[in-house]
Amino acid sequence: MDVETFLAELKDHLTAHQIILDREGLSHFSYDATEQRFMPHVVVLPENTQQVSAVMRLAYKYDVPVTPQGGRTGLSGGALPVHGGVLLSLLRMNAIIEVDEKNMQVTLEPGVISSDLQQELKKHHLFFPPDPSSTVESTIGGNVAENAGYTRAVKYGVTRDYVLALEAVLPDGEIISLGRNTVKNVAGYDMVSLLVGSEGTLAIITKICFKLLPLPLKRITLIIYLNDLVKAADLVVSIFKAGIIPSAIELMDNISINTTADHLGAPLRREAEALVLVEIDGHHEGALREEANEILALCKGIEGLLEAKIALDDTESDRYWLIRRETLPSLKALGKDHLEADVVVPRYQLPFLVKAIRALKYSPAIKIATFGHAGDGNLHVTILHRRRNFAELSEAYTILEEVYKKTMEMCGSLTGEHGIGITVKDYLPLQMSESEIALMRRIKAAFDPKGLLNPGKIF
Amino acid sequence: MDVETFLAELKDHLTAHQIILDREGLSHFSYDATEQRFMPHVVVLPENTQQVSAVMRLAYKYDVPVTPQGGRTGLSGGALPVHGGVLLSLLRMNAIIEVDEKNMQVTLEPGVISSDLQQELKKHHLFFPPDPSSTVESTIGGNVAENAGYTRAVKYGVTRDYVLALEAVLPDGEIISLGRNTVKNVAGYDMVSLLVGSEGTLAIITKICFKLLPLPLKRITLIIYLNDLVKAADLVVSIFKAGIIPSAIELMDNISINTTADHLGAPLRREAEALVLVEIDGHHEGALREEANEILALCKGIEGLLEAKIALDDTESDRYWLIRRETLPSLKALGKDHLEADVVVPRYQLPFLVKAIRALKYSPAIKIATFGHAGDGNLHVTILHRRRNFAELSEAYTILEEVYKKTMEMCGSLTGEHGIGITVKDYLPLQMSESEIALMRRIKAAFDPKGLLNPGKIF
Repeated sequence: MDVETFLAELKDHLTAHQIILDREGLSHFSYDATEQRFMPHVVVLPENTQQVSAVMRLAYKYDVPVTPQGGRTGLSGGALPVHGGVLLSLLRMNAIIEVDEKNMQVTLEPGVISSDLQQELKKHHLFFPPDPSSTVESTIGGNVAENAGYTRAVKYGVTRDYVLALEAVLPDGEIISLGRNTVKNVAGYDMVSLLVGSEGTLAIITKICFKLLPLPLKRITLIIYLNDLVKAADLVVSIFKAGIIPSAIELMDNISINTTADHLGAPLRREAEALVLVEIDGHHEGALREEANEILALCKGIEGLLEAKIALDDTESDRYWLIRRETLPSLKALGKDHLEADVVVPRYQLPFLVKAIRALKYSPAIKIATFGHAGDGNLHVTILHRRRNFAELSEAYTILEEVYKKTMEMCGSLTGEHGIGITVKDYLPLQMSESEIALMRRIKAAFDPKGLLNPGKIF
Repeated sequence: MDVETFLAELKDHLTAHQIILDREGLSHFSYDATEQRFMPHVVVLPENTQQVSAVMRLAYKYDVPVTPQGGRTGLSGGALPVHGGVLLSLLRMNAIIEVDEKNMQVTLEPGVISSDLQQELKKHHLFFPPDPSSTVESTIGGNVAENAGYTRAVKYGVTRDYVLALEAVLPDGEIISLGRNTVKNVAGYDMVSLLVGSEGTLAIITKICFKLLPLPLKRITLIIYLNDLVKAADLVVSIFKAGIIPSAIELMDNISINTTADHLGAPLRREAEALVLVEIDGHHEGALREEANEILALCKGIEGLLEAKIALDDTESDRYWLIRRETLPSLKALGKDHLEADVVVPRYQLPFLVKAIRALKYSPAIKIATFGHAGDGNLHVTILHRRRNFAELSEAYTILEEVYKKTMEMCGSLTGEHGIGITVKDYLPLQMSESEIALMRRIKAAFDPKGLLNPGKIF
């Protein structure tokens, strides 16, 4: 790595205000939501694809590692420059280039903030379902790199399902176009899906075309309390069996309910073992009301039901979705350190995973909260502990590994939507064989023979 | 390639009735729906993954090419052994291993016939939307290898959207497991999507896990005749704008209407420039009726409407869907040879593509019919000619190239659902740059360094 010569030549391609070298400036880009820190040698803020290409070409020439970065809201450390070198922030490439109403597509740059896209599309009565809880800070490029999901995945799928085409810059600076602006395309390998979720390790995404849907006209939320987690799974199965596909089915366990109730002063039922929030959406209010009543009837058939009700209006709905959104911040506000697992199992196994986690033996200083996307089988497990207490820290890691092992026993995956990054990579061999990992490494090498792009991630 | 030694060792792993060497037997496996023929040296019919692995290991050892094959219904020649060697038919690996109602998944072997899966799932009130028109002959493995689409893609997506996990055998015989039986999974690169649609060039798929949906309870078909193709596109856009996502929107042009009417003796409106079939499906008959009436109202707002009606009952619906399904067979029954393009453009460009094709100058001996999936922008262009008349044949190829060029001008793709195979591979450089093709070749090499698996396809 020859950073000095690299920097000297870099100034031919970027202006002074696009290059950050001072310690305070570098520090700003050195951490994400994992609260880990890695200092880059330099931060660059390109403003167009040509500049990204120039940076990459130079970095390739002088063997300088490059880590792409969006809004720094990642939960697996994927955008942290663990090997130093160049931190390539895409925040200044933030144009929504075209909203194509007739073809229901949007073309945009990766630095667009998620909620800015949501607001723009609403004006056109268009809908882009993936909308992570970090929406006001996370970038679309980050969502694509991590294949973000969140609550609506149960009905609408994840980010990958909406990416039609990408422009990207390869590690050697070459600009490529992958996919087409068409909803179907089988010309060659699916390089688009390969780049989505590749955590910035294969190429730098510089332009994205998403397909869009018409904005659903109506939404209804149901609030359901149960005294048993397994009953929550039974309910989920019975909803699907009835032919209803909700737009969200979220689950909070007793600890999550109580911690969030404390933190927000929200009047939740603290004795419940499970709070299930169900959202249905659609085109016809009448049909939705009918569906909501069907779900209520299904609830009444479940032993262990404490309460089931339809939210009175949008205000009440919004209140419950805010409670769900604030679950992790509420847990964080307890002032403890936390380890998080983003495990996912086949939908019906979810409560059994929760029960298996409950059955783990651990000291009373540790608390484990579980909440997540019941419709997808995706559970966020938060292990609260004190990092500076070595016994607690090592116990927390033991629990984390146990959670991963239980997940593997249930044919699940180590991560449903947060990515492997640096926080999960040591556990990847629990899920993949040596030859499967070797195959991924060969694909990495097909894009990045020098291993300069986002090194130290995934494997 | 050392076929003799390969065959001698093969007999250690397969029984005599799993190896075909006689000319008549080989001939049976030598063609597909493209009507092209390539003779293999040997046909093998493995019955389990271990046997597939054994065949691959030996072929790798003796440098023998291997071409995997399903139901031979492909329209791009992807399953033809153009380099001879081993034809590996997966027809005997045809078990539906498990229908998991609670998790809404099915695990099966690649040789299962598409319509057999459809019938099995119906018993469980489950739904697997991709169902190509070749459903009674095509295999699920072929659908996965080609990423099959067909009519319901507009609402439900294509085969790739349903594949959760795959077991596959690499060219060197290694057995790998990709993906997980979970609806979300971001652990590592999306190798599942990479294999889907890779036309059997990366690995032999030996087991598949699909996610499923609840079976929609109700369906309604609308039959709409228009005197202008562009009005058909306006109608499609207005349906989406109204917030309605139909489960199918199909388009037939005047020639397709007349040829199919002649062939089936069907009472279609022959003067129409466009027949649009719209299917909506859902959970509530009342809401569906409302939607159907909304679509009728939208039709009435369109100048150039000849007729719009709701099919009276399932019998009338089925009749129209059969007419649509029989369009290509009807064109084939004209007794001419045909070249087909499976082009796809952004949805709203479709009629402009049809108009551009109409505007081409060609001799009266040639006929061009266009029909396809209007909701997806996917058009099947059938160029009818006589192959043995050299002037007509060369004119047909000139037209084919023009169709591809017009498609490229509209930011479309050379193939929406049939694949590149051998029939489209010469045109791939129209759509992809040299460096994009080179990148795909490096990915191919990451799986198949010796280039033995399904050689001669895609590039």
